[in-house]
Amino acid sequence: MESKFTIDKLNDLLSGERWLIHQDGYRSEENRVYETNFTLANGYLGTRGLLEEGARNEYPGNFIAGVFDEADGMSKSIVNTPNWLGLRLYIVNHPLTPDACQVVGSKRTLDMQKSVLFRQLTIKDEEGRETLIEGYRFLSRSDVHRAAIKWYVTPLNYDGLLMLESILDGSVVNDRDTPRLRVKLFRIVENVDLGKRVCYLEAATKTQDTRIGVGAITRVRDGAGEDIVKFSRLAAFGERRMAYSEFDVAQGQTVEIEKLVVTYTSRDVAKPDVKKAVVENLDQFAAEGVAAELNRHVNVYRRLWRMADVQVAGDERADKALRFSIFQLMNVANENDPTVNVGAKGLHGDFYKGQTFWDTEIYLLPFFAYTWPAVARNLVMYRYLMLDGARKNAAENGYQGAMYPWNSADTGEEESARWALDIRSGELTPWYPEREVHIVAAVAYGVHEYCRITQDTDFLLNYGAEILFETARFWASRLEYDAAHDRYEITNVIGPDEFHLHVDNNFYTNYLAGWNMRRALELAEMMEQEYPSFYAEVAAKIDLGDSELESWQEIQQKIVYPGGTTGLIEQFEGYFDLEDHVIEEYDEHNVPIWPEEVEPSEYRQTQLIKQPDVVMVQLLLPNEFDEETKRIDYEYYERRTMQLSSLSSSASALAGLRLGYDSRAYQAFLRAAEVDLADNLGNAELGVHIAAAGGTWQVAILGFAGMGVDQVGELRFEPRLPEHWDSLTFQVVWRGSLLDVRVEKDEVEVEVSSRPPLALAEGLPVGSASIGKMPFGFNASDSKAG
Amino acid sequence: MESKFTIDKLNDLLSGERWLIHQDGYRSEENRVYETNFTLANGYLGTRGLLEEGARNEYPGNFIAGVFDEADGMSKSIVNTPNWLGLRLYIVNHPLTPDACQVVGSKRTLDMQKSVLFRQLTIKDEEGRETLIEGYRFLSRSDVHRAAIKWYVTPLNYDGLLMLESILDGSVVNDRDTPRLRVKLFRIVENVDLGKRVCYLEAATKTQDTRIGVGAITRVRDGAGEDIVKFSRLAAFGERRMAYSEFDVAQGQTVEIEKLVVTYTSRDVAKPDVKKAVVENLDQFAAEGVAAELNRHVNVYRRLWRMADVQVAGDERADKALRFSIFQLMNVANENDPTVNVGAKGLHGDFYKGQTFWDTEIYLLPFFAYTWPAVARNLVMYRYLMLDGARKNAAENGYQGAMYPWNSADTGEEESARWALDIRSGELTPWYPEREVHIVAAVAYGVHEYCRITQDTDFLLNYGAEILFETARFWASRLEYDAAHDRYEITNVIGPDEFHLHVDNNFYTNYLAGWNMRRALELAEMMEQEYPSFYAEVAAKIDLGDSELESWQEIQQKIVYPGGTTGLIEQFEGYFDLEDHVIEEYDEHNVPIWPEEVEPSEYRQTQLIKQPDVVMVQLLLPNEFDEETKRIDYEYYERRTMQLSSLSSSASALAGLRLGYDSRAYQAFLRAAEVDLADNLGNAELGVHIAAAGGTWQVAILGFAGMGVDQVGELRFEPRLPEHWDSLTFQVVWRGSLLDVRVEKDEVEVEVSSRPPLALAEGLPVGSASIGKMPFGFNASDSKAG
Repeated sequence: MESKFTIDKLNDLLSGERWLIHQDGYRSEENRVYETNFTLANGYLGTRGLLEEGARNEYPGNFIAGVFDEADGMSKSIVNTPNWLGLRLYIVNHPLTPDACQVVGSKRTLDMQKSVLFRQLTIKDEEGRETLIEGYRFLSRSDVHRAAIKWYVTPLNYDGLLMLESILDGSVVNDRDTPRLRVKLFRIVENVDLGKRVCYLEAATKTQDTRIGVGAITRVRDGAGEDIVKFSRLAAFGERRMAYSEFDVAQGQTVEIEKLVVTYTSRDVAKPDVKKAVVENLDQFAAEGVAAELNRHVNVYRRLWRMADVQVAGDERADKALRFSIFQLMNVANENDPTVNVGAKGLHGDFYKGQTFWDTEIYLLPFFAYTWPAVARNLVMYRYLMLDGARKNAAENGYQGAMYPWNSADTGEEESARWALDIRSGELTPWYPEREVHIVAAVAYGVHEYCRITQDTDFLLNYGAEILFETARFWASRLEYDAAHDRYEITNVIGPDEFHLHVDNNFYTNYLAGWNMRRALELAEMMEQEYPSFYAEVAAKIDLGDSELESWQEIQQKIVYPGGTTGLIEQFEGYFDLEDHVIEEYDEHNVPIWPEEVEPSEYRQTQLIKQPDVVMVQLLLPNEFDEETKRIDYEYYERRTMQLSSLSSSASALAGLRLGYDSRAYQAFLRAAEVDLADNLGNAELGVHIAAAGGTWQVAILGFAGMGVDQVGELRFEPRLPEHWDSLTFQVVWRGSLLDVRVEKDEVEVEVSSRPPLALAEGLPVGSASIGKMPFGFNASDSKAG
Repeated sequence: MESKFTIDKLNDLLSGERWLIHQDGYRSEENRVYETNFTLANGYLGTRGLLEEGARNEYPGNFIAGVFDEADGMSKSIVNTPNWLGLRLYIVNHPLTPDACQVVGSKRTLDMQKSVLFRQLTIKDEEGRETLIEGYRFLSRSDVHRAAIKWYVTPLNYDGLLMLESILDGSVVNDRDTPRLRVKLFRIVENVDLGKRVCYLEAATKTQDTRIGVGAITRVRDGAGEDIVKFSRLAAFGERRMAYSEFDVAQGQTVEIEKLVVTYTSRDVAKPDVKKAVVENLDQFAAEGVAAELNRHVNVYRRLWRMADVQVAGDERADKALRFSIFQLMNVANENDPTVNVGAKGLHGDFYKGQTFWDTEIYLLPFFAYTWPAVARNLVMYRYLMLDGARKNAAENGYQGAMYPWNSADTGEEESARWALDIRSGELTPWYPEREVHIVAAVAYGVHEYCRITQDTDFLLNYGAEILFETARFWASRLEYDAAHDRYEITNVIGPDEFHLHVDNNFYTNYLAGWNMRRALELAEMMEQEYPSFYAEVAAKIDLGDSELESWQEIQQKIVYPGGTTGLIEQFEGYFDLEDHVIEEYDEHNVPIWPEEVEPSEYRQTQLIKQPDVVMVQLLLPNEFDEETKRIDYEYYERRTMQLSSLSSSASALAGLRLGYDSRAYQAFLRAAEVDLADNLGNAELGVHIAAAGGTWQVAILGFAGMGVDQVGELRFEPRLPEHWDSLTFQVVWRGSLLDVRVEKDEVEVEVSSRPPLALAEGLPVGSASIGKMPFGFNASDSKAG
């Protein structure tokens, strides 16, 4: 689809086609999915892609990273904050909305290069009056507190009076469409007119009293920049505030409307200063104008893309889907604030309550470690800042060390609901977050991967070590001694495969627990030798002595793997005794079709799985298993994996690729890449599948380009490009340098820039320059289990 | 359409077809009109006919008589109070609403005999699960604070879990769809869970701090009356409160849902006692049950209909439309509270802000005076209670006496906006309520008519006299002396015909002013002779002496009628000099078609009129004009009246009928009777045309049945039934008795009951028994102008 605007300025702004995602026409039943896909986010604030004028089945969502709260006994959630988007025109009381008018033409275009959402709407009211609305909106990444909407409005066949209402809407709730869970997380404490057409709404979250202040100025001007408002009014309607304006328009004459918005919270400034911060910034913003801010914003994205863009030659569809995944990853990441992490639905929806899962370490971290180390460091630093919560969580569950929670918000304590709603039956089933204990190893794995890739010795010594030791200590206390067999086991857990909710000695959990302890032991030894003062400090802080290390050594050696660690490995104790059903059919997207003979209510009694735990271990720790074992396990579990998680497609693809299953990998890659764009799981409306986005990048770079760090810490490429791809071009930040990589079927070109783009290195430790040589084991890939 | 329910109880409840108004099928674009027509009201509270589960283009409206307030500089309005209707089912999070599901079948039936709104809905969700919802709701007239919804819910083809949310919604506003005027008139001051599943919301109006408390209990039971709720939750979402329940259902098994609601305001009880009043009544209501209350409610309506029903034999359409008009009149009337009046849109919408106009006296009062004198007395007593406001209004405008306001709310002061929004241009035009001064004479006319019909001497002597004297005094000060011609004139007014906004010596205004003064003079003379102590008291109270009475005598004799008072009378000075255009064409409903040669912007420069002022005077005071004059004026003005007001159809019909224009009258009658049912002016969605309803009754009874009071104070009938009507049967309360009247083409039968039904006589003065003989002039019809 060609994007062509009447307003020349808009055509000048728009990037080339490879940067654009289009919505052509208007079908209200598609609103929710486009709201997710057209969400704009700048790491600080995410705003779903609603129409400014409102639509009947919209789901308003404005999420500020780190603003969590809880009420009504529901578990803690990212707060759905007041919706600042509202902007609606009326021709003398006839609202110009798709619900009330005829949509003559509608296009929306997401410009990923600039992170700007463009639109063009020709709308006809009952009396045949046609109005063209063109414009854009953006959430600035130059000043994350700022956002703006710009509209160019042209009456096509009439003269008359237009009315404009600009709304700040505090009536939003969380989980609106699920009355069982619906919750309002804030009260409106101020709803005022500050003069000079400044509307201000301040919300206070119910439990923590976090303040969210949002201010807006709405202006209407003619082509010459003159204010044309002839009547205006500001008013409050309960939790809403409206700025209303009237102005005359003439056929063919374009008027410009802009809404400037500023948001601050009491996480940014002291509580009493929130309003002041909003007003001062808004004044300044109004003085500078929208164009100046847009320019700065676009420049930030230009630098981000210089580091992270991936181009696929020969496959436009894959090229765009991959870019869309990267765009979402950049948008949910916060480069400035280590106290926030990434929620399972990004800043794009309130499903999963904005909480952080193992997705961060397993699916997101590699992308950031290789392209935007500042963000990667924040993501692992977040876990360090949550250590006390994790320690408390361990103590509450009767363990030692740090038991990272399955659902993490702003304290490191477990935020998971104790029950889950089964959508099929509507029944509440108890949920046991403490059984998904493999998250603890995932945090350790994340620290290890981050340090291995970035060589950030500063982080490892000052923060990472403490995490590794405390997680190892947790495992030592969690492992249960089986005296009869002189072995350690872990009973009653849920592995990544959530089809089986109560299993003993899950291979994934047990293996990663051992791995976690081995890495901690290695690190302790290394630090004692190479960085004794750092070691002394952390050991003293957490009271870690030699006898405890010795006990870890013994315990990890005696961990039981019921099905062994080579050949066909059993997912958990007794798995092979379950009814065996094999996937025989796949749909047109190569998605498994549920075997007919298995009743939906009985799948937990079969070997069918949601995700392949054994394959996952081998994917995360490829050097710990031989090729033959990996092939056997992949072949076995792939035929039993229902791929019902957005996480499984990319893992499956990556594992397959490494074993040479190219064509299956491409389909799985595309499925992951398009999970939201094509809504191929049917739930894109709930928010972006951000882990799938990270997985998509991994399949492309770690799979098709075959990039990896070898045993001596060098980058290696083993290209396995899909047959129809001509080349794959991308960038990697590596050891303080930016590498431009171009991979073709049988050639890899790497060009080295002396330093990465300025914005990314500013104030951020990249590489090992500050401290020196990285400790052994963090330089190369993993060593084999003992 | 046949109404046949699955639930036998519902069929038993339903009245015969002549009492029923049906909506068959569901088309969302019709929602607004049905919301008006299916509004239930009990004189105290009016609730628009929304679907309980909500629909996308609904306009929530809950209006409590007398609860007015103002904010944001808007003029005073009846307050749109929290919406208590919300009741929505979900099958495991899938809302069963027409917007989200397929409507397999939908019927709604308004039972006018019982004032109950029935419904039947078969709704199918995306997964093909069909649910049958049947039930009803009512606003009790036995205890006007109580309302209830009852649903019978049957899963037709599934077993499973149902979720129910029951909402009290305080997020409503006034004038929601007009952002220029939209206003929120209250704050929510309490939104609490009172235990035992009692939800409570208390609103405080913004300026007067009137409290509105609404409480609700929602129950779910099986057929045996057992509570089947397995999980429930009460929660607040900003201005909303929700009661949530979950329960299991089985295919073919019906569950019963009921929502019991109680409303009190600080107009009913002291401010601190509002919550207590709600809770106590709600507790009692819950103990008594819905069926008992329904039974009492239906009994009240049975007695009301015993007095007011009209039956047309031979014309089912007219029969039903007439009954619908009467039903609305009964519903907007308050028999208990003389501090409230009837708004121009009833309790059915917030258009015209719930304010009272001359409609009450001219269009509504005759119906009540002849069928329900207690209400009629309240309506005129309201004007007495507003006397101080009217005096203040006079003083503020530089006059004496009582200047009743064009728009009246709760003080008697002028509530009209000083500007009006022209819907065509969107421009605000100044408005001059003080020019529509004819309202003052309408109030006097109402008092006179009420006393003449009911012979309520008590009211006349104690209250009515003061109104008549103070209005006469107003006119004496308002009339301007033209020394050059030794005459009195009234310049710069707007007559009933609002096409001409600034005229001098409007015939309607001048004539009624004189009439008002003559009635006052007559009454003063009468009271001095017959009731000297009453006269002395009122004269002393308002400082009325003989010299003032003499000056009134002189002034009224010198009032100018520029076009004379016989033959072709000129509507106002200079009217005949305006461009003359005559209506040549009528549409299929006999509604005038705008003459092509008249530009819409220029109609004020022509003789085209909205309503015929001269004909109106002759209609109100038929004995003051000779037949020839009336015929000439009717013929002239009828061809220039655009019938653009819902008030004009009935006036035109009645005037025509009295002159023998039978066929035209029937069409005008039907137009007025169906103005809402058939939405023939296209604005029924805004609320009921209550004046048209009153006019409809007048055409039927005063026109077709030709009922009137003759010169000696006897009821007379001069039937002029439409050709195809077999008979017209109705009741009249006359001199303390109930008359059953049956009018046929050339026969009138009257049967006299010794006393009217109990409810109507309770504590209400009907007839003159208490004081004695009515003063002369109030016994018979009007005497001729001097």
